Amino acid sequence: MIQENFTVPFTAGIAMSIKRTLVASAIASLSLFSLPSLAVEKADLMITDAMVLTMNQDKTVYEKGTVVIKGNQIIAVGDESLEGQYQAQKVMDVDGDIVMPGLINTHTHVSMTVFRSLADDVPDRLHRYIFPLEAKLVSRDMVRIGANLGNVEMVKGGVTTYADMYYFEDEVAKTVDKIGMRAVLGETVIKFPVADAANAEEGIQYALKFIEEYKDHPRITPAFAPHAPYTNTTEVLQKIAKLSLEKDVPVMIHLAESHREEEKIAQRANGMSPVEYMHSIGALNQNLVGAHMILVDDKDIQLVKESGMGVAHNMSANIKSAKGVSPALKMYDEDVRIGLGTDGPMSGNTLSTIDEFNQVAKVHKLVNQDRAAMPPIKVIDMATMGAAKALRMDDKIGSLEVGKLADIIVIDTKAPNMVPVYNPYSALVYSANSANVRHSIVDGKLLMQDRNMLTVDEDSIRKEALEFTNVVRKSVIESGEVVQ
Amino acid sequence: MIQENFTVPFTAGIAMSIKRTLVASAIASLSLFSLPSLAVEKADLMITDAMVLTMNQDKTVYEKGTVVIKGNQIIAVGDESLEGQYQAQKVMDVDGDIVMPGLINTHTHVSMTVFRSLADDVPDRLHRYIFPLEAKLVSRDMVRIGANLGNVEMVKGGVTTYADMYYFEDEVAKTVDKIGMRAVLGETVIKFPVADAANAEEGIQYALKFIEEYKDHPRITPAFAPHAPYTNTTEVLQKIAKLSLEKDVPVMIHLAESHREEEKIAQRANGMSPVEYMHSIGALNQNLVGAHMILVDDKDIQLVKESGMGVAHNMSANIKSAKGVSPALKMYDEDVRIGLGTDGPMSGNTLSTIDEFNQVAKVHKLVNQDRAAMPPIKVIDMATMGAAKALRMDDKIGSLEVGKLADIIVIDTKAPNMVPVYNPYSALVYSANSANVRHSIVDGKLLMQDRNMLTVDEDSIRKEALEFTNVVRKSVIESGEVVQ
Repeated sequence: MIQENFTVPFTAGIAMSIKRTLVASAIASLSLFSLPSLAVEKADLMITDAMVLTMNQDKTVYEKGTVVIKGNQIIAVGDESLEGQYQAQKVMDVDGDIVMPGLINTHTHVSMTVFRSLADDVPDRLHRYIFPLEAKLVSRDMVRIGANLGNVEMVKGGVTTYADMYYFEDEVAKTVDKIGMRAVLGETVIKFPVADAANAEEGIQYALKFIEEYKDHPRITPAFAPHAPYTNTTEVLQKIAKLSLEKDVPVMIHLAESHREEEKIAQRANGMSPVEYMHSIGALNQNLVGAHMILVDDKDIQLVKESGMGVAHNMSANIKSAKGVSPALKMYDEDVRIGLGTDGPMSGNTLSTIDEFNQVAKVHKLVNQDRAAMPPIKVIDMATMGAAKALRMDDKIGSLEVGKLADIIVIDTKAPNMVPVYNPYSALVYSANSANVRHSIVDGKLLMQDRNMLTVDEDSIRKEALEFTNVVRKSVIESGEVVQ
Repeated sequence: MIQENFTVPFTAGIAMSIKRTLVASAIASLSLFSLPSLAVEKADLMITDAMVLTMNQDKTVYEKGTVVIKGNQIIAVGDESLEGQYQAQKVMDVDGDIVMPGLINTHTHVSMTVFRSLADDVPDRLHRYIFPLEAKLVSRDMVRIGANLGNVEMVKGGVTTYADMYYFEDEVAKTVDKIGMRAVLGETVIKFPVADAANAEEGIQYALKFIEEYKDHPRITPAFAPHAPYTNTTEVLQKIAKLSLEKDVPVMIHLAESHREEEKIAQRANGMSPVEYMHSIGALNQNLVGAHMILVDDKDIQLVKESGMGVAHNMSANIKSAKGVSPALKMYDEDVRIGLGTDGPMSGNTLSTIDEFNQVAKVHKLVNQDRAAMPPIKVIDMATMGAAKALRMDDKIGSLEVGKLADIIVIDTKAPNMVPVYNPYSALVYSANSANVRHSIVDGKLLMQDRNMLTVDEDSIRKEALEFTNVVRKSVIESGEVVQ
């Protein structure tokens, strides 16, 4: 570190020359300074000339900022003066591009990429179309192939952490481990027979085994994923709640999503709303993450707040299915732990929240009849810190702060749709798309650089996915089961 | 052409070999056929192995399709058998990618790119913020610099034709001429002093001169653009309507957009709606294109239909400003000439309709409470043929049909967000973004190939735009006039 009594102005130009020419010549050219003051700390990666959106509590922005990484951690964030204080193995000069926390997708079913663009607009699609499709085609292979494709899409779209609910989550885990992303993976529990369990109890056992296997993984958090309140019994939901507290793992569930659910729960529980019901059975707690939360009123929001549970807001999927708009802005403003999610690729249909920022901002303006509602900074907060809070990972990720894990993305500000950037939050929300993400870093490691995947082979992943689509075509399209 | 009595199966493989090895060797290898049958027609460009969405009346799709271009026209569209019937100077094998008509953006203010991301969420923004900003900063230079940037963004986003309303449209025209796009350019007429006219009459004179200058341009249609009914007098609106019929040029106007407009027109015209008022003064006719058309009821829609006027539907901009949702689906279903538009980059904020397909489909589902409402095929139709109809250019562009002008885009189907494509309309609407556009062709000429601009220098255009933003920063941001 530069000593505090070091008073000679340390300009960016000099700092840059130190960075570029490295120790010997730099010290020689600076021989008028006392040498001991120049001691620099070693680092692995330093990102320079960045418009840094820290997304910390104060929403600090460094217009000419620097982020310094050692191992998998951020060890410094600040202005250009940091450049002279660290000597990094790799320096990325991003030429004014936006540097921000990696996006966190709080809800998806990543493996369903292989079904994307099938029968998008079929009424009552989940029960009439998706469940039968899955009964026929979900397998270990399908889960792996779909997850590999979805992981690439997310890394290329700036998502560094995601929360998944599906079957054979141990297969998803292997793909996450390989590509180097971070994920919360929830093994589904549902009352009818599915590909990896004959009933809910088998689902619980599958989940327990998966949790045991992955509980110490540095980037993977195993979890329970009871599908929904109405597709599970009260006893199962209570058992999962109890186990999740014992094991200290998350529980992810579709909650307050549809009128069908609302009616079934009201019948089961004396007219209660889904949130009230979950509260009444002791299943609403800080380990729970509720996806959708469309049909919630003020009383429900109060219960959500008191419980400390997280919420996944999936605007784009929710309006595609005409289910309505969650009062997500109200929840955010009332300090509910809420973040953005894409939902699965049969629902959203893309997997990167950056492509949904626009909709999240604009649809909340529309329903609130107020152009100032849901300003860009709130959208970005819900995509980063809000999402980290929803998944109870805000001590580790969600902002660029010293001590946090180095999950970082760099956004191209030179693409014509991104020029100019008077306000980086506006540019990100109203102009950016997933292809504007240049680099993605997880746990201090570059997973994508200049849009090239570094840890997996994108071409072979795509080819394998396309081969699987032939199975899908034969199985459901040529048989006439798909209404297009 | 291959003669009709030519009965030997002409497989794709053989056709490909003819295409690739060209005349001599191909004929040698086919010596068992009678040579005169092999006469092939010359062409300039042939796109092969394409999933061709023709967007013709029957919405014909060729899964392994071919499009053949000679000069600036499409001379053949069909399946792979066409490959053997033409010998083209350039063959583009697009390896299964989607080939479709170029997108037509029916409403923008392209030069405003240089103001993008300024003060996005300020209430009553047009009157409190944008008009004063323009009074200060609109100039010939600003119009040219902003248009150059916006043109690049549009070509890279698959827009091949756009309709513009702004000042100094002769400057916009020069940029359109240079880059090679197609455009309808409307010179603004407004009652208060603006950068290129002291009053409405001067605006009309400016427009007349511009129309005279560009009326015979092969790709540019000059037009009148009275800003709105409430920002012009009845006499001016009537004079423009009369002149437009005499000169046979379009009139573009913001219509039925805001409550302010509705109130002012109701005061002026005995409680009439903006559409009724325009009808009552004889200004509603087939040359008119109304942008927004949010505040229209069934009676208004009837007048719109009877008049034959066109409508520009700008979903994304309209909901950003919380103005509401135009009954665009109803108008489309009732055969109104309606197409998609982005509005200007301070409003939309991007310029390619492909980034809005998603919102157009989903928000209409939301407001209609019906997931089957606004299916993808209608969105694509409104972005192509519908938009061509709105601008009365449907005899020339909007579909891939023999005799139409060769305005064609190629969409990457290998990007991870686009895999798989069970339904190309769904993939385009729910998954694609502007960066998935690989090639853009206008008037038979490649303007972008593999995302590289061929007719302009993208870097110098961006640099010039960024230099202008320093003027903006000094002028309005550092002076404290911008609320961010």
